[in-house]
Amino acid sequence: MSRLTLALDVMGGDIGPRVTIPASIKALEQDPMLSLLLFGDSQKILPLLENIPTALQDRIKVCHCSRIIENTQGLSYALRHSKGTSMRLAIEAVQKGEAQACVSAGNTAALMGLAKILLQPLKGIERPALISVIPTMNGDRSVMLDLGANIECSAENLYQFALMGSIFAENCLDLVFPRIALLNIGIEEIKGYKSIRDAAELLKQNPTLNYIGFIEGDLLLNGKADVIVNDGFVGNVALKTLEGAAKNVISLFKGSPTLNKTNHILKPIFRWFVRTFLLKGSYQRLKQINPDQYNGASLIGLTAVVVKSHGSANIDGFAYAIADAAQQARQKIPEKILAGLQRY
Amino acid sequence: MSRLTLALDVMGGDIGPRVTIPASIKALEQDPMLSLLLFGDSQKILPLLENIPTALQDRIKVCHCSRIIENTQGLSYALRHSKGTSMRLAIEAVQKGEAQACVSAGNTAALMGLAKILLQPLKGIERPALISVIPTMNGDRSVMLDLGANIECSAENLYQFALMGSIFAENCLDLVFPRIALLNIGIEEIKGYKSIRDAAELLKQNPTLNYIGFIEGDLLLNGKADVIVNDGFVGNVALKTLEGAAKNVISLFKGSPTLNKTNHILKPIFRWFVRTFLLKGSYQRLKQINPDQYNGASLIGLTAVVVKSHGSANIDGFAYAIADAAQQARQKIPEKILAGLQRY
Repeated sequence: MSRLTLALDVMGGDIGPRVTIPASIKALEQDPMLSLLLFGDSQKILPLLENIPTALQDRIKVCHCSRIIENTQGLSYALRHSKGTSMRLAIEAVQKGEAQACVSAGNTAALMGLAKILLQPLKGIERPALISVIPTMNGDRSVMLDLGANIECSAENLYQFALMGSIFAENCLDLVFPRIALLNIGIEEIKGYKSIRDAAELLKQNPTLNYIGFIEGDLLLNGKADVIVNDGFVGNVALKTLEGAAKNVISLFKGSPTLNKTNHILKPIFRWFVRTFLLKGSYQRLKQINPDQYNGASLIGLTAVVVKSHGSANIDGFAYAIADAAQQARQKIPEKILAGLQRY
Repeated sequence: MSRLTLALDVMGGDIGPRVTIPASIKALEQDPMLSLLLFGDSQKILPLLENIPTALQDRIKVCHCSRIIENTQGLSYALRHSKGTSMRLAIEAVQKGEAQACVSAGNTAALMGLAKILLQPLKGIERPALISVIPTMNGDRSVMLDLGANIECSAENLYQFALMGSIFAENCLDLVFPRIALLNIGIEEIKGYKSIRDAAELLKQNPTLNYIGFIEGDLLLNGKADVIVNDGFVGNVALKTLEGAAKNVISLFKGSPTLNKTNHILKPIFRWFVRTFLLKGSYQRLKQINPDQYNGASLIGLTAVVVKSHGSANIDGFAYAIADAAQQARQKIPEKILAGLQRY
C-alpha cells in the first residue's frame, strides 16, 4: 500500500464530529499508510483527539474552519456561501494536490456541485453520478448508479452512467465484461420512461458494453446484473429501501425479545445451537447486507475521488467510507475511467 | 358476510390458469358466500376443475374466451384489440352488474386503461392509482400509492392520491386521521422533484388531511406514515425492492444448508429451541412481510373494485388478491371514497 492523504469534511452528517472523528481514528488504525486532513471546528474536534496515541496524532492535521454547509441549504445558496466551509476546504485540498481524495457526509447536492466546479468532470462526461457497491445474495457484489446526484436524467446521461459503472465494476469488483441492466418497472421493452427505453437502444448499439436488459426492483440483490443503472431519484429511493429492509430484518433477529428473556442456563446452549446449525451460513450472509459495510457512495466521473457518506452513517459506516476513498485513490479509479472512456 | 360474485381474468400472470384456478378453488373454500366467474380458455380451465367437490363447482361459472391481452402489448394496441379478451370480459361483467369486482394478474397498463374506460373514474378523480397495503415492523399496516398505474404525475395527481389513500386507510385499516407522507430522497423541503414539493404545499393547505412531510425509502416499513404517496414509477420500484429484500432474507432462513445437514436426532430438538426462543416473535413478524399475503394492489379511484395481482403471484398470492377484492367490494370502498371526496 502506498502513502496517501485524504481530506475529510468532519462536520457533515447527522451527528458530525462525534461520529466522524472516532471513525477517522478507526480508519487510521486500520490503514498505517494513511494520513488525514480534518476540516471542521477545532473546538469540537480536538477534545475527541485528546487520548489517542502520538503515532496516530502524527498522521492527523486538524484544519480549523467555523463555517459549514447545512443540509437544508438549497444548492445555489450553498454554492454562493460555500467559501471557508469544511466541505469546500476539503475539496479544495484535493484540488491543490494536498490530498488525493475527499470524504463528506454533508449535503449531497452541495458536495456534487462543489466537486463538479472545483475538481471538474472527466472529459466526455456530462454529469457525474453517485455510485455504490451493493451486496448480492450469492455473495458477489454489484454496483448501482446514479443514487441521488441527478434526479432527472436523459437517455444519454443513463448511457454514460452505464459506461462509467461498467468501468468501475471492471476495476473495483475485478469483473470481466460486467453485465449492465437498466432499472425499470417491467422487463418488457415497452415499459418505463422514454429516457430509459432510449438508453436501452443506445446501450444495445455499443458492442463493447454487456447490456442485458431491464431489471426490476425485486432482483436488485440477486446478482442478475453487475451494473444497475437508474436516475438519481429512483436509485436513491431503491437503495434506501433496500437498506431499510435489511436493517429491519437484521434487527428482528438481533433484538429478539424471547431470546432476551431466556434464562442464563439455557442462553449459552441456545446460542451454540443457533451458531452451529442455523445461523452459521445465514448470519454470515446476512452480515453481507449490513449497510454499515456498504456506506460510502462515490461521485464518479470527476477528476478525483470524492466519497459521499450517508448522513446517518455511524462510526463504522464513516470509517468504511474513508477506507473506500483510500482504496479508490490507490487504484486510480478516475484515471482508469478516463482511459476506459477513450477506449470505447 | 354477504353473497358476492367476482369476475376473474384467469389467463393473466406469468403462469396463467395453473396458478389462477387452484387459487380460485382456495378462495372459494375459504369464503362460502363467494361465487366466481372465470374468464379464459375453457380447454385450459376445465381440466383443472375436474376433481373438485360439487358444492364448489356450483359456485363457479366458466366463461370461455380464446383471446388474451399479452404483457408485451403496448397500451394503445391492447385497448384496440381488447374485444373478447379474458381481461376485458371480466371488467365488462362488473360493468354489467354480473359481478361486483374484478381480479386480473395481466398487463397492468391494459387493465388500468380498460377499467378506466369501462368502469369510469369516480367524479373528481383525474387519474386512478394502484394502491397496496404494506406491513410495518411494529405489526401495523400502511398503504402505498401509486404503484405503477401512472409513471409520471403532477402535483395535483399526487395530492389526489394522498386524499384517496387517506380514505382507503381510514376504511380498510380502520385508522382515524391517517398520517400521510410523500416519498422523497430527503426530508428537507428543498429535496426532490418540483411536483413532490408542490404536492406538499397542496397537502399542507388542507387541514382535513394529516400531512406529516417527506419520508425516505429506508423508513417505508417503520410505520412512520399510514399513507405513503409517490408516482407510479418510484412506487413500483420501491415496492418490488421491498418484496425482493423480504423474500431474499426469508429464503436465507428457510433454506439454511447447515440446518438441512443436521442429523435426525438433533433436528427436532433444534427446531423446538428455535421455535420456543428465537423465532417465536421474529418469525411471526417475518411472516408479516411475506409478500404472498400482500399480493393484490387495487386500482383506486374507479366506480368499482379492480384488483391487480402480481404477474408472478403464486397460488397463495392470487388467492389473497381474490379475498382482497371480495373484502373491498363488501366494504363498498368506491362508495366510501366518493363520499369522502365530497366531504373534503
